[in-house]
Amino acid sequence: MAALYIALLHFPMRNREGQVVVTALTSLDVPDIARTARTYNVKKFYIVHPVESQRRIAMRLRDFWVSEEELPTRREALELVAIREDLEEVYQEIAQEEGVPPLVLGTTARAHLLPYPKLAWEEARRISGERPVLVLFGTGHGMTDELLAACDALLPAVRAGGYNHLSVRAAVAIILDRLKGEEP
Amino acid sequence: MAALYIALLHFPMRNREGQVVVTALTSLDVPDIARTARTYNVKKFYIVHPVESQRRIAMRLRDFWVSEEELPTRREALELVAIREDLEEVYQEIAQEEGVPPLVLGTTARAHLLPYPKLAWEEARRISGERPVLVLFGTGHGMTDELLAACDALLPAVRAGGYNHLSVRAAVAIILDRLKGEEP
Repeated sequence: MAALYIALLHFPMRNREGQVVVTALTSLDVPDIARTARTYNVKKFYIVHPVESQRRIAMRLRDFWVSEEELPTRREALELVAIREDLEEVYQEIAQEEGVPPLVLGTTARAHLLPYPKLAWEEARRISGERPVLVLFGTGHGMTDELLAACDALLPAVRAGGYNHLSVRAAVAIILDRLKGEEP
Repeated sequence: MAALYIALLHFPMRNREGQVVVTALTSLDVPDIARTARTYNVKKFYIVHPVESQRRIAMRLRDFWVSEEELPTRREALELVAIREDLEEVYQEIAQEEGVPPLVLGTTARAHLLPYPKLAWEEARRISGERPVLVLFGTGHGMTDELLAACDALLPAVRAGGYNHLSVRAAVAIILDRLKGEEP
C-alpha cells in the first residue's frame, strides 16, 4: 500500500477579497484533522505555517494530546502530526522517507474554474494506491492560484455545482473518504 | 426530492466511562455542520440541547452569523439551524412540515457491534431519495444504546474495522457525502 500524506497550509492563502495572506492556526484543526488522518491511515499530517509563534501553538496542542495518557485514541491520532515551516521542507522530507518524490495533489472549491491539470476521483484513488501522494489543503479562502498551479494535479471540487463553502475540517474528511472509503 | 434533516444531540450521551451524561455545546459545531448541511441540501439542521443556557449560546452563535451581512455564504448556511429542547419536538415538527413522520436513522461508530436494525449505504441512499429522513448525530462518546434502539435503523459505522474516533464534524461530512455524494 502506497503512503498517503496530507498538509494543512496557512500561506500563501487568499482572503475574502482575493488578497494573499497568512492565515492564523485554528486550534480545533489539530485534533480534528489528526483523527480523520488516523482513520484513513494517513502516514503523516503536516501542519505548515511560516510564523514561528503559530508553529509553537500547534506544537503545544500536539504535545498536550500526545502526553494525555487517559485518551489513547487521541494520542494515537496526534502522533501523526508534524509541524513544519514551509511546503518545500515537507516535500523533501517525504521524498527522502519514500525514496521517491510524492505526487502533489491540490484541493480547491474552485477546481472546475481553473485551467490546471485535474484528476478524476477514480484515477486519484488508483494512483494513491500505487505511489506516495501528498494532498494539500488550504485555509482562509483557499490556496492562491500560483500554489495550485505548482501542484502536479488538482482533485475535483466537492459538489462544484452548488454551495461549496465547506470548512477545511469537513473537506479533509470528505476528500479522504472519497480517496480511501472503506479500503485499508 | 425527499427532505433530509439532521439533528446534533447532547443528551442522553455516553461519556468515556459509558455513563449517561449531557454534553456541552461545541461552538464550532454550529457553523461547521451548518455549512456541511447547506452543501448537501439538508432542509434543517437541528441542534438539540436540554439545558436552556446552552440553547441560548447556540442561538447567539446562529444569530451572529445570520446577521453578518458581509459573509452571505455563512448566513445562507446558518439559516438552516434550528435550536430545540428535545428530539420528540424535532420529530413532531418534521412530521407536521412533511405531512408524514421522518424515517429516523441513528449513527454510531459501534453500529456493527449492536443488535439493532441496520441499513446498507445503498439502501439508505435510495430511501433518502424517496421519503423524509432524519439522521441523528451524537456528541461526547456517542448516543446511549437506548437512544440508538429507538431509531428506525442505524447507518453503518465509517471504517468499522479500524480506528474509528472521528470528530462529529468529520462524521457528519462523511455520512452526508455517502448519502448524497454529487446528487442534487
